[in-house]
Amino acid sequence: MDVAVILLGVGGVGRAVLARLGRAAPAVTGVTFRLVALVDSAVILTAAAPPGGAPAPAAVAYLDAPTLDAAAAAKAGGRPLAGLAAAHPVTATARGGGGDHDQGVLLALAASAAAAGATPLLIDASASAATTALLVAAAAAGVRVVSANKVPFSSAFSAFAALLPAPGAADDGGARASRSRRLVRAESAVAAGTPAIAALTRLVASGDAVTHIVGCFSGTLGVLTTAVAGGTRLSVAVAAARAAGITEPDPRADLSGVDVARKALILGRLAGCTTAGLADVRLEPFVPAAHLDAGGGGVDAWLAALPAADAGAAAAVAAAAAAGVVRRYVGAVDVAAGTVTVGWVELAPDSALAGLAGSTNAVVVTSGSYPRGEELVIRGSGAGVDVTAVGVVADAVELAHTAAVG
Amino acid sequence: MDVAVILLGVGGVGRAVLARLGRAAPAVTGVTFRLVALVDSAVILTAAAPPGGAPAPAAVAYLDAPTLDAAAAAKAGGRPLAGLAAAHPVTATARGGGGDHDQGVLLALAASAAAAGATPLLIDASASAATTALLVAAAAAGVRVVSANKVPFSSAFSAFAALLPAPGAADDGGARASRSRRLVRAESAVAAGTPAIAALTRLVASGDAVTHIVGCFSGTLGVLTTAVAGGTRLSVAVAAARAAGITEPDPRADLSGVDVARKALILGRLAGCTTAGLADVRLEPFVPAAHLDAGGGGVDAWLAALPAADAGAAAAVAAAAAAGVVRRYVGAVDVAAGTVTVGWVELAPDSALAGLAGSTNAVVVTSGSYPRGEELVIRGSGAGVDVTAVGVVADAVELAHTAAVG
Repeated sequence: MDVAVILLGVGGVGRAVLARLGRAAPAVTGVTFRLVALVDSAVILTAAAPPGGAPAPAAVAYLDAPTLDAAAAAKAGGRPLAGLAAAHPVTATARGGGGDHDQGVLLALAASAAAAGATPLLIDASASAATTALLVAAAAAGVRVVSANKVPFSSAFSAFAALLPAPGAADDGGARASRSRRLVRAESAVAAGTPAIAALTRLVASGDAVTHIVGCFSGTLGVLTTAVAGGTRLSVAVAAARAAGITEPDPRADLSGVDVARKALILGRLAGCTTAGLADVRLEPFVPAAHLDAGGGGVDAWLAALPAADAGAAAAVAAAAAAGVVRRYVGAVDVAAGTVTVGWVELAPDSALAGLAGSTNAVVVTSGSYPRGEELVIRGSGAGVDVTAVGVVADAVELAHTAAVG
Repeated sequence: MDVAVILLGVGGVGRAVLARLGRAAPAVTGVTFRLVALVDSAVILTAAAPPGGAPAPAAVAYLDAPTLDAAAAAKAGGRPLAGLAAAHPVTATARGGGGDHDQGVLLALAASAAAAGATPLLIDASASAATTALLVAAAAAGVRVVSANKVPFSSAFSAFAALLPAPGAADDGGARASRSRRLVRAESAVAAGTPAIAALTRLVASGDAVTHIVGCFSGTLGVLTTAVAGGTRLSVAVAAARAAGITEPDPRADLSGVDVARKALILGRLAGCTTAGLADVRLEPFVPAAHLDAGGGGVDAWLAALPAADAGAAAAVAAAAAAGVVRRYVGAVDVAAGTVTVGWVELAPDSALAGLAGSTNAVVVTSGSYPRGEELVIRGSGAGVDVTAVGVVADAVELAHTAAVG
């Protein structure tokens, strides 16, 4: 079968997805993936002019391999997709100011591909906060959606429940659950391709009562935790990680804990929490708030002020060592209480999370069938564009074999 | 949607599956499961006489809740299903001597249910070596199959490749892969519901090159390993585990390592090995072969002779402790070499498998995206009828949402 892919985002993750889709062997997957559109922040790049009118005509035109290679090279070099139109057989449609224009173009592309016998698939490899409405509209139209972007699932609960199985949502007889299970996957939104969401979704589907989830969901903060536990000063560790490209350009985006909060919120909602939004997560930042806000705004001034946090971080490590415990920065879900919490905890040295080092992620699930002491543990790399693409392509293969939603 | 379940095996696992299917909430799963047949070694129990002739008539009659409860109670009490016909609205069809009669009856039931608009699903909750042909025939007929029974996947390679994705099989353009991904699941054949197969299948689907798999796949042998490492004599540990129902009635079935070999073989084949059969697994038993064969045949005589193995087991523990390593009885796959090996290994104390205790299973996967030191680890309970049923029902929910195979 042919899957017609619309790829949102041609950054590091998007390019890794492109490369991996090209390598996925039809003999193993039962699927042939082909690209119908690449979308960056400026244009929608297609092999032919996008279809207009309704009903959508039966038509699908795929971007050829030289175009895909050139697109990846352009984006890797910081150049826009729009520039490809000069040398390749493509149409670059400028994205509109509002979401509706783009959504209309992309859903018409999907409908035309479906009418031509292909299975349309929208992949969100962006980190944009603006794709949620498109993803919801696509799923509502029966278009399959894979997202590595965590924002659509960690904002309003209504958007989550429109996309992924939400056991806490009102009982609608299973129509929404059926749609979600057939049309939407988001493994790489949490812990990259490490199958935390797949494992949790399976437990919930089986009727197992998930009670608690706790995990280390940030490779970046894991690297910093390991460095500081090993005696490196926090400010030095942050500067080194930033220089190595491990943190965001502004490390406060990592140290705020918001990324961890988004991931914990997603897992909590999958387990039955109905947490209204990100603001409802109880969030203790990785560094005390006073240090997160120090320096007066700019990243350089903030970095210059960060050494003031070093003594506190070192003292916390020393106190934990003296107490025979291990400190970990975790996201935690208490399903019965309906709470999602992010912050520092102290763990026994033989616990699953205490054994982590560096960027490795782990998720620990407690349930009726996996009680305390016998929890389900999923551990593996939680960062990097390649392992993120692993999750995206595995999701895409699953959706290629699901039933359509009428 | 309605899924019409044919359940093979109404032992401990089968009854746990029945209970869990009854609890699976349609609002969460998007599915309603109903039973059309219960099958034990003697009869096929249905709510109406099985359909005859071809094409199958459009008809589906479900077993009612009182009948299912009575069936579970009967089997739990050691009584045959056939006895239910006296007090419940059921037909008990005697199973034939050959496989063809039963297969004809069951596939006709499935075809009738499909013609009536339900989705037929065959669940193998038996431990029988005789179901393989039925499972293969069912999948070939487009009937969905979930198996907790490991035998069909750990015998001839051809049967495996007819059922599950086998990257090592000849390239047929993806038809077999597509059929497998849409119609067959077998999570609970390895490590019960702990999602080792789901995780591995996802990696392989993504094109990630899995190179090595190693794991502890036997809860029973894990319990014995922990006891002996803690100073209990092997023969005492075996007798205690047998008394607690943790071992098979004849513990040699566990200590032979054959069960571990079957599980390792399944994982190896999922990763690309084309190992012809169980006899090709390199198998070192849990106790030296001389002790496995001692005693002259009967289980009591064997148990009486087992203390002769105690000193060797204790010496191995002491030697490992002196060397600063931890002994684990593992199944291991080397994909490039095409080998599946079962036996004792010595591991660093900080390795994922060294941290296991008791009946917990774990699988460690090394791949291009999860290289040495950053392996993917899936850990959790690997035994017990409830956690086995978790895997079966999660599989069933997945298959309820796959596309049909024409």
